[in-house]
Amino acid sequence: MSAAPERLFTPGPVEIPQRLLDALARRPPHHRSEVFKRLLAELHPRLCSLFGTSGRVVVLAASGTGGMEAAAASLVRPGESVVVAVAGKFGERWVKILRAYGHAPRVVPGEWGQAVSPQALESELAKAPAAAVFLTHSETSTATLHDLRGQAEVARRRGALVVSDVITSLAVHEFRQDEFQVDAAVGGSQKGLMLPPGLALVGLSERALARLEAAEGEHSPAFYLDLRRAAASAAKDDTPFTPAVSLILALDESLRMIEAIGLPAVWQRHAAIAAAIRAGAQAAGFVLFSQAPADSVTALIPPAGISPKRILDHCYAERRFVLAGGQDALREKILRIGHMGLAYGPDDARAVVEALVASLAAQDLTIQPDLALRAVARSLKEIPCESSSPTR
Amino acid sequence: MSAAPERLFTPGPVEIPQRLLDALARRPPHHRSEVFKRLLAELHPRLCSLFGTSGRVVVLAASGTGGMEAAAASLVRPGESVVVAVAGKFGERWVKILRAYGHAPRVVPGEWGQAVSPQALESELAKAPAAAVFLTHSETSTATLHDLRGQAEVARRRGALVVSDVITSLAVHEFRQDEFQVDAAVGGSQKGLMLPPGLALVGLSERALARLEAAEGEHSPAFYLDLRRAAASAAKDDTPFTPAVSLILALDESLRMIEAIGLPAVWQRHAAIAAAIRAGAQAAGFVLFSQAPADSVTALIPPAGISPKRILDHCYAERRFVLAGGQDALREKILRIGHMGLAYGPDDARAVVEALVASLAAQDLTIQPDLALRAVARSLKEIPCESSSPTR
Repeated sequence: MSAAPERLFTPGPVEIPQRLLDALARRPPHHRSEVFKRLLAELHPRLCSLFGTSGRVVVLAASGTGGMEAAAASLVRPGESVVVAVAGKFGERWVKILRAYGHAPRVVPGEWGQAVSPQALESELAKAPAAAVFLTHSETSTATLHDLRGQAEVARRRGALVVSDVITSLAVHEFRQDEFQVDAAVGGSQKGLMLPPGLALVGLSERALARLEAAEGEHSPAFYLDLRRAAASAAKDDTPFTPAVSLILALDESLRMIEAIGLPAVWQRHAAIAAAIRAGAQAAGFVLFSQAPADSVTALIPPAGISPKRILDHCYAERRFVLAGGQDALREKILRIGHMGLAYGPDDARAVVEALVASLAAQDLTIQPDLALRAVARSLKEIPCESSSPTR
Repeated sequence: MSAAPERLFTPGPVEIPQRLLDALARRPPHHRSEVFKRLLAELHPRLCSLFGTSGRVVVLAASGTGGMEAAAASLVRPGESVVVAVAGKFGERWVKILRAYGHAPRVVPGEWGQAVSPQALESELAKAPAAAVFLTHSETSTATLHDLRGQAEVARRRGALVVSDVITSLAVHEFRQDEFQVDAAVGGSQKGLMLPPGLALVGLSERALARLEAAEGEHSPAFYLDLRRAAASAAKDDTPFTPAVSLILALDESLRMIEAIGLPAVWQRHAAIAAAIRAGAQAAGFVLFSQAPADSVTALIPPAGISPKRILDHCYAERRFVLAGGQDALREKILRIGHMGLAYGPDDARAVVEALVASLAAQDLTIQPDLALRAVARSLKEIPCESSSPTR
């Protein structure tokens, strides 16, 4: 095993830039102090810009799933009809959460590895309306991007509230909450935001806020994850419960990194690196699992019946690169490479493709390493990284 | 305003020792890696020792309130009778959480500043049995310690499951979960464990685990906070959702600090410092608010009708000491001094009493500073800190 430091190419958590680790090591202020209140007051409009909403963004001490549950528990009333687009593990998670809250969601299914089309969603909504539709922008389990704008447009037209998981798309893929007509968007800290796990972020449109306000005084099926409380506190630059202060200090630093190059450049950078990895991997003989590949994660089927595990093991043993396998039904079928956040640059695209190529060579597959690396270089020329690598 | 660094004397978060901040700044391993699995495998028995249970301790990415909700949502079935001892804001929190889950808790009330006695609890349980009793070991809002052992003994004898908030007593006051007969104990990271906020810890007795297992297959009213999932994963040194990895690295370091001197010495240290602050404050003319003062937090009524805010402002302006006011009904009535965690030593007892004395002097109250400091010294002689100050 090489003595090189480990490098994560996992679909979250991701490599954390040093300046964010430094922020975590700062002595945090008290969460009810003026200093922290000022920080929240500064953060709130910047988070609204990140989501692209004129509404409000609340920050919860929870994983992304906690944020999903907060949206489901707070925005749907008992007995209301809900529809979920499901083409992977995280679409299924919406179903499980909604069932825990006593709902019987209607599912618009998609093949794993394909996106659920706006048309499929529309057909379901044409059968019977829904109070809310639950979507997954980037389905992490299949590395698939959905046409969220198209899905949301259909759902809105049919009168539904639009709730989307943007956990692996926030600060990765173009996402503009209000323009896309998304009412609640759930993000997590350990993806495009480059932080350790522990924060969920929920962007709420004006429409979602109005709905929360209209539900004032109604019984809530949740307490800690009740968004009415969180949204009302956020309006006063406060939190209803003790926030994860250290992670919020690091969030401030993460936003600074993103703001320094601008969101469009951040999206472009992810597009460039993802395209280069896809090009290199395909040139090496891997097959893309997804029909609509996301720029957050790349899912690959190894050539010649080689098991994904062999590739993962080789990449770790030789390079200390941590790649991920498939989940659930995809466990033995695919490997996944995560490349979210500004810690990943063109060098990483080259290095991970090199590692993939070497792992095939170790399985006695004769391949031409140059071919794969040339594909990477060509791709990076076509879609350049607009910004140079920020400090790690 | 002095240029000295700020020092928290708040009832959590508390001052974080430097070595814990250093741990937060370490590059965290992936949460599904062997390295992290080994860390969880090491942590789980040490957490059981911390709680004093042969059961299991689960760690949630949430604030303490999230841990309280997890216990309430997972351990009580719809329609079951529950009793809550309430003598402060955090007793009330149990009531609010239980109501959110559709329960109609019976309340055993106590005066704020007094403890709810085991006898009062027994009288209520004698009227009608309860499936579960919800308690608060150290009531942070009134700085009051409950006789948790006595309360739990009564509740158990009457056949109830015992659930207790130990948020500000864990690693502060003597607490031995199994010996005390507590079935579920909820702790938080930012108190005696000296970490930033963001983790809830729930200690589960064998009896609580059996109850969770018996409920397997039943409908859960929660998802993210469903303890069945968390307990089943913890048994395999895993977590159901992405854990707050950085905080868990720091938790490991926190336990090392506690283990280095031993829990009894940790409890003794808190007892010594709390006694010294109480003695000094009383000698200065402050009145203890609590009839059963905890060693986690000290609640004081200022002399001569001086408003608590004046004291807080003076302590901050002159020394940069952050003290807390009262909450809710106690807002204008008391001030609270937090002294949880190993970052606080005898020097802090002296310094905070000095600051209190100076703040009275600034209000033209003639007091003898020596009297208060001598009381501190005398108290520290009577109840010594068994260990020297660990590295900050």
